Amino acid sequence: MFEGSEKIIDVALRPNCDSLRELPPQFWQELVAACGADILSVVHHQSCDAYLLSESSLFVWHDRVRMLTCGDTLLSPALATLIEKLGAAQIGVASYQRKNEYRHQVSLASFDQELIQLRQVINGKGYRVGHLDSHHHYLFLAYGESSSRPAPVTYELLMHHIDADVANQLRGSSLSVMHIRALLQLTELLPEFTIDDHLFSPFGYSVNGVNQAEYFTIHVTPEKAHSYVSFETNITAPQLLKRVSDALLALFAPESWDVIAVNQHPVEHELSGATQSTCSIVSEQSDNVQFNHYQRNDIRLCCETL
Amino acid sequence: MFEGSEKIIDVALRPNCDSLRELPPQFWQELVAACGADILSVVHHQSCDAYLLSESSLFVWHDRVRMLTCGDTLLSPALATLIEKLGAAQIGVASYQRKNEYRHQVSLASFDQELIQLRQVINGKGYRVGHLDSHHHYLFLAYGESSSRPAPVTYELLMHHIDADVANQLRGSSLSVMHIRALLQLTELLPEFTIDDHLFSPFGYSVNGVNQAEYFTIHVTPEKAHSYVSFETNITAPQLLKRVSDALLALFAPESWDVIAVNQHPVEHELSGATQSTCSIVSEQSDNVQFNHYQRNDIRLCCETL
Repeated sequence: MFEGSEKIIDVALRPNCDSLRELPPQFWQELVAACGADILSVVHHQSCDAYLLSESSLFVWHDRVRMLTCGDTLLSPALATLIEKLGAAQIGVASYQRKNEYRHQVSLASFDQELIQLRQVINGKGYRVGHLDSHHHYLFLAYGESSSRPAPVTYELLMHHIDADVANQLRGSSLSVMHIRALLQLTELLPEFTIDDHLFSPFGYSVNGVNQAEYFTIHVTPEKAHSYVSFETNITAPQLLKRVSDALLALFAPESWDVIAVNQHPVEHELSGATQSTCSIVSEQSDNVQFNHYQRNDIRLCCETL
Repeated sequence: MFEGSEKIIDVALRPNCDSLRELPPQFWQELVAACGADILSVVHHQSCDAYLLSESSLFVWHDRVRMLTCGDTLLSPALATLIEKLGAAQIGVASYQRKNEYRHQVSLASFDQELIQLRQVINGKGYRVGHLDSHHHYLFLAYGESSSRPAPVTYELLMHHIDADVANQLRGSSLSVMHIRALLQLTELLPEFTIDDHLFSPFGYSVNGVNQAEYFTIHVTPEKAHSYVSFETNITAPQLLKRVSDALLALFAPESWDVIAVNQHPVEHELSGATQSTCSIVSEQSDNVQFNHYQRNDIRLCCETL
């Protein structure tokens, strides 16, 4: 069941730190297990280890770790654990991001509660962007006290209510990963990347791609009531980023989508037939987080008999 | 604190029923008290009694009752109580409406739970209109088994995130009801109506208007984080309805607004700079409920430091 988009934690260490990639495998197994997820597979590339999880993805560079989980897993305790295990003095910058939930989940802590817990291990600022009655995101951003660094460049494209025909196709019973790779045009769009993907039962698809220090990940939830596809990457080449974004938007034709760009300019989209709302946060260390929300203009409201 | 727009119950009796207006005053006092509200004042007009409540309004005609409450009061038990007290055989048509909540309210039952409870007293259909990740409304609609009738004509205009200057003005400490009446142009727009209004502390304003069998009610919640103004009426004259709607939209300039029109055509708005999404429900007895959602195109997302 769709439960809002991924929660994300990101920790980048201070310069000259010990490499995170030299930590023993069980360090990551324990972290992932503590979030209620399993490691399905891993690609060890030259500069990055890319783990495909039962509940999204984990990327580990020598000085950075980024983990995404979906569903009703809680990620903020994992961030606190990670900071405690690595040592607060090692942290350059750390962040935690979650989206509003649409269904009441009594089990989930509120962002306010999470802020209190996170601030017990590191001093940071909390932000909400977007109105409470529409898509909105929560962000926690904390800098190392001894040695801070800029937040890593990241680009997220979060697509809601995708084209019904494509969603139907992605719920098909005879799908293969090759079929979905072709649909996504991964080989054409991102030929340099090593691909690791998984098809979930009854449906759902995740793919990690890694090329040197660059990564991308796509998660597809083609649920009928609320279909959702997320793409994120640290690719910085503007033309490549635009080519991939445009292709994904053309394929999935979402009713609404959000872009979250950290220390990067959002791709300029052709906006005929859609409306853009924007907001940006500049942190006390001059990190820039840009949120764009897009809404197609011609949508019919859905109506459901209960 | 803003808790989503009003919840509404509406009961219209079968033809040749006993008059609801002859029920003793404590009948309504008890009903209102059971919802956690108080009666502030009442206007007894020729065809309608209009009660101003601490948590919205109650209107009683000889064959119909409509009650609105805001906040975290539950209204579905009041509908069940009302049907039980009046006798299911007296009911022509009954409805219950609520909007999605934005904040987690553990105390509030889900609409699914409310449906189960309501269906213990009357057989009816539940509907959801709108996506879960945007404004959406829930509606329960039930017809009398022995003698049904069409749902009464109603028009709701629900305005979210009003102009910041107007909201500021409405939070002012030296406001009077006369000031707000003038702001709303009530005397100019609706000169025939007997007005009953109340200014709440620290802010908030409610007004009932009644003229023969016609009513209107406006509730203003100028809260900074989420300002909200609702207008509803059973006025059917299209030009008057358009004049009032246009005046309210011009005054409050909301970022988004919803129209819910029961057995009535929505007012045609000049839509330059806003986008309309629509949906309509036709019940098994051919009642028509039209939902229109409007969103201004030029909004900037709000951002809040937590």
